[in-house]
Amino acid sequence: MDLITLEEIRRLKARYLRCVDLKLWDEFAEVFTEDAVAEYDTPVLGKTLRLGGRDAIVGYMRKNLGPGKISTHTASSPEIDIDGDRATGIWALDDSIIIPESRLLIRGAAFYHDVYRRGDDGAWRVEKTGHTRTYEYMVSLDDMPSLRFTAGT
Amino acid sequence: MDLITLEEIRRLKARYLRCVDLKLWDEFAEVFTEDAVAEYDTPVLGKTLRLGGRDAIVGYMRKNLGPGKISTHTASSPEIDIDGDRATGIWALDDSIIIPESRLLIRGAAFYHDVYRRGDDGAWRVEKTGHTRTYEYMVSLDDMPSLRFTAGT
Amino acid sequence: MDLITLEEIRRLKARYLRCVDLKLWDEFAEVFTEDAVAEYDTPVLGKTLRLGGRDAIVGYMRKNLGPGKISTHTASSPEIDIDGDRATGIWALDDSIIIPESRLLIRGAAFYHDVYRRGDDGAWRVEKTGHTRTYEYMVSLDDMPSLRFTAGT
Repeated sequence: MDLITLEEIRRLKARYLRCVDLKLWDEFAEVFTEDAVAEYDTPVLGKTLRLGGRDAIVGYMRKNLGPGKISTHTASSPEIDIDGDRATGIWALDDSIIIPESRLLIRGAAFYHDVYRRGDDGAWRVEKTGHTRTYEYMVSLDDMPSLRFTAGT
Repeated sequence: MDLITLEEIRRLKARYLRCVDLKLWDEFAEVFTEDAVAEYDTPVLGKTLRLGGRDAIVGYMRKNLGPGKISTHTASSPEIDIDGDRATGIWALDDSIIIPESRLLIRGAAFYHDVYRRGDDGAWRVEKTGHTRTYEYMVSLDDMPSLRFTAGT
Repeated sequence: MDLITLEEIRRLKARYLRCVDLKLWDEFAEVFTEDAVAEYDTPVLGKTLRLGGRDAIVGYMRKNLGPGKISTHTASSPEIDIDGDRATGIWALDDSIIIPESRLLIRGAAFYHDVYRRGDDGAWRVEKTGHTRTYEYMVSLDDMPSLRFTAGT
């Protein structure tokens, strides 16, 4: 068992998720291979969102998770398999998107199916990421009239 | 410190939880010893649910978490102690059960107390699992009239 | 990569969080150095809460998270860097505080920024902990009139 690679891949995923939730888009780009592909199950858009290439992935996130949209991603229960310079990872995801201005909360869970690749520089990057939803719902914050943000807005 | 066993046990728990949330009951059976015992603190039923034997555990889940019931289990903060071919594990759990047809959401947190055993084949399995609730509540989705599922139903 | 130290620090954090959520204040004291500092971003109080010294941290928690207040802390995505007998750790946090008697739910997410120190006895302890909130909101449980606790009260 390649324990060091396991740590490197867990840390790569941690960085990926932190960059999304803190909107660190320049650093976010560093986690992907140039030819990376993302396939997010996005039922709220009525489809699977397919993004080809690092620039498309980063550009999409930069545009669609900009200021005014709060996201939190909790990834747990990794199942990582390493095969030379490639590896796969399954993760449980629990996520929320909150758009205070639109009074909207999107809440859900999913399983990620990732592929990682080790570059010539020895660093692991995300070659493919995608998730399949267990559930997702949208609800208006107006259903909870007492709700008051104390941070994030 | 036996780092490889730590990884094996974390992965065993990940597989256990993934099989529950994806309803993979045949694979779920593989995580348990034949004589496994489960004791779930299930206040919504007014008692601790005690299941003796792998078949009883799997049968209960298959029956009670069937199609139409969404579950998500986020386990974090493992504290694992290994003693030869046995090990114990404490995990923090954050879980939800959603039953759209009954308009019901059950939400809670708990701490798992698990016992794991290494078999003659070298594989770790769950010999005992159980959890004690920090809290649990039930709420009707009718309290959030705007709530609309976009996946999972 | 010092894999054993990584495990020790993850376990230290797990113990810290379990002690908070189970209100094990005597054991909670053991995770800190005597000169530990905590800086929690606590917008609900309108400020960053700064606590200097192990006794101040433990005393604050003992007083403010006593019986009648339910807390759950889910920490994920650690990014730990070790430098000799010191280490830093970033963690994603998803937390809730529920105060049934006040009919109050406080929900939020944050990123922890911790510093750990290895003592002369070889044990790692928290020298500094703090978090910055991604978001936080308060909501009255009266907005969900059907909500009924089945555990934790």
